[in-house]
Amino acid sequence: MKVNKKNMQTIWFDKNSGYVKIINQTMLPFKLEIKELKNLEDTLIAIKDMWVRGAPLIGVTASYGMYLASKKNSSYDFLLNSGEKLKQTRPTAVNLKWAVDKILNSIKSNNNFNRTQKILKMANEIRKNDIKACSKIGENGLKLIKNLYKKKKEKINILTHCNAGWLATVDWGTALAPIYKAHRNGIPVHVWVDETRPRNQGFNLTAWELMNEGIPCSLIVDNTGGHLMQNNMVDACITGTDRTTANGDVCNKIGTYLKALAAKDNNIPFYVAAPISSIDFALNNGLKQIPIEMRNEKEISHIMGLNKKGNLETVQAIPSKANCINYAFDVTPAKYITKIITEKKVVEPNKKSILKLINEK
Amino acid sequence: MKVNKKNMQTIWFDKNSGYVKIINQTMLPFKLEIKELKNLEDTLIAIKDMWVRGAPLIGVTASYGMYLASKKNSSYDFLLNSGEKLKQTRPTAVNLKWAVDKILNSIKSNNNFNRTQKILKMANEIRKNDIKACSKIGENGLKLIKNLYKKKKEKINILTHCNAGWLATVDWGTALAPIYKAHRNGIPVHVWVDETRPRNQGFNLTAWELMNEGIPCSLIVDNTGGHLMQNNMVDACITGTDRTTANGDVCNKIGTYLKALAAKDNNIPFYVAAPISSIDFALNNGLKQIPIEMRNEKEISHIMGLNKKGNLETVQAIPSKANCINYAFDVTPAKYITKIITEKKVVEPNKKSILKLINEK
Repeated sequence: MKVNKKNMQTIWFDKNSGYVKIINQTMLPFKLEIKELKNLEDTLIAIKDMWVRGAPLIGVTASYGMYLASKKNSSYDFLLNSGEKLKQTRPTAVNLKWAVDKILNSIKSNNNFNRTQKILKMANEIRKNDIKACSKIGENGLKLIKNLYKKKKEKINILTHCNAGWLATVDWGTALAPIYKAHRNGIPVHVWVDETRPRNQGFNLTAWELMNEGIPCSLIVDNTGGHLMQNNMVDACITGTDRTTANGDVCNKIGTYLKALAAKDNNIPFYVAAPISSIDFALNNGLKQIPIEMRNEKEISHIMGLNKKGNLETVQAIPSKANCINYAFDVTPAKYITKIITEKKVVEPNKKSILKLINEK
Repeated sequence: MKVNKKNMQTIWFDKNSGYVKIINQTMLPFKLEIKELKNLEDTLIAIKDMWVRGAPLIGVTASYGMYLASKKNSSYDFLLNSGEKLKQTRPTAVNLKWAVDKILNSIKSNNNFNRTQKILKMANEIRKNDIKACSKIGENGLKLIKNLYKKKKEKINILTHCNAGWLATVDWGTALAPIYKAHRNGIPVHVWVDETRPRNQGFNLTAWELMNEGIPCSLIVDNTGGHLMQNNMVDACITGTDRTTANGDVCNKIGTYLKALAAKDNNIPFYVAAPISSIDFALNNGLKQIPIEMRNEKEISHIMGLNKKGNLETVQAIPSKANCINYAFDVTPAKYITKIITEKKVVEPNKKSILKLINEK
């Protein structure tokens, strides 16, 4: 998608250097910084410190991490170990595990000589497929927005939480893809952007994306969505997902559950955009089975922004010595979700509908 | 309540100077700054810019504002006009209107000569009654916490939103008063403190209050409460209210509604601590009848904290030119509220139960 009117993606393999390039998302929206990942260690840091984030992009980055690891040592044991290290960086998103396991399975029978190139080819393919899947999610979600517009015949107001835009994937995004497609199809849309504390991915990333694409948006604190929904100012909610269970429970950025409750209370559709790689077909109870990552207190206590001189500065915005607890995700039970938008089709949040996707993979 | 182990209150009349003193709450938790209000204009700024905030404290401050106005001109017309100016500073909280009207009604028949002293006496009385009412709310709420403790026999975890502690009143607070009383009665309590964006009164004020009183607390972003409630980590929610309707709808800090939905979804009691002065007996529908204040975008876009050098600094934490929308309150329908704790007694959130309070005023 666009950055300063030029097309850009979040991650790419640089043939000249043989390394992988990414946008360091921790510097957005203040600075567009490109980082080079040269080895497994760089990749672990990039994922753990959230230079890249978003379940689909983490999966793609991990694929390249496997490639970079294999450049050092392409033995199966070394790569199995590297895969474990990658999986441990972020416990909640399932795409990471999915991508690493996909690569490990495919190289088991290969001899060492072919492995590095084979993994690069697979990583490039996972990357390409992510773009395709997101574009298809956009098209499938566009139909839902079109239906809303047919009824309302006026600007469609969509609330989103966190960032599930192109920055969370390679291109297009998941939750934002239908919005981008709607905008390009001439449907007037306006997006309510949740701040998404503690890391503010809504303000820092989603707003930046939408503004770069010229889509009208308003920034709101995470507390506001309920009030907007009570007052007919939201036509639909669309969020992403870090892991979806076979029965349709959705684990996503902390706070998603609260918005889903408000949507239900006000009869507003709550859509979840989920690439099939984010569905964990082995699980049947999100609340009991999905590990919820706890992150550093500093994400809560310290906030980065521009000071009066226009320089980046981090301030402590809590009383000194206060104790912060930082859960990164929550689980929205399937009963609060209206539809799940996948790249294959739009499905109901139940086991019957979701399991059918396996045969279509 | 305590600040650095010494007792303190939020507002007092200084006999020596003849002026009114307040804590400038916009500097907390970083700096304890006492400000002097010398005239009506100082008072208008103090309320509008939220040096003082919290429905009960706004009411008390407005009373003293009427006194300070009367020192300049004690004619009824001038005071009527001053009262209007005070009422316009914050449209949502009803205590402000209640206090101003109470004073205006009482001086209608007085001659000019007595008015200034009469108003001071009334303001002092409103202040004293606020302390009494909060202490009584604490005792009535304590019974509810005692019941929870009797059943659980372990530490009681209470979630609160915004600040309805002593800083929102003169002393004790409303929502926090039962917690202070429980702590002093030896019941082990732990408080989940919602950040309460955009002005962060949870982190800046509630956490500061609780830490000064030695009550264990954990700071969480506003998105977290739902997850905690799903996982049995919250035994009760207690919030304050800026205006309560006769049918039990509660208008409070934006985001309260979302927490009430989550409490309902997880069968957790949701208590509202409401001094009778915050009940608007004339209203029967909070969503339709209560004006919701919209405040400056800068409250969202700019955040104050301590920089690396330990100096206070404000940073812009959104993309430049982004559009923010800042609603300050939302309405929680009565059906999501378990009990309303007043200074007279604990009532059900319905008209029959609430209207009975009138006769007991």
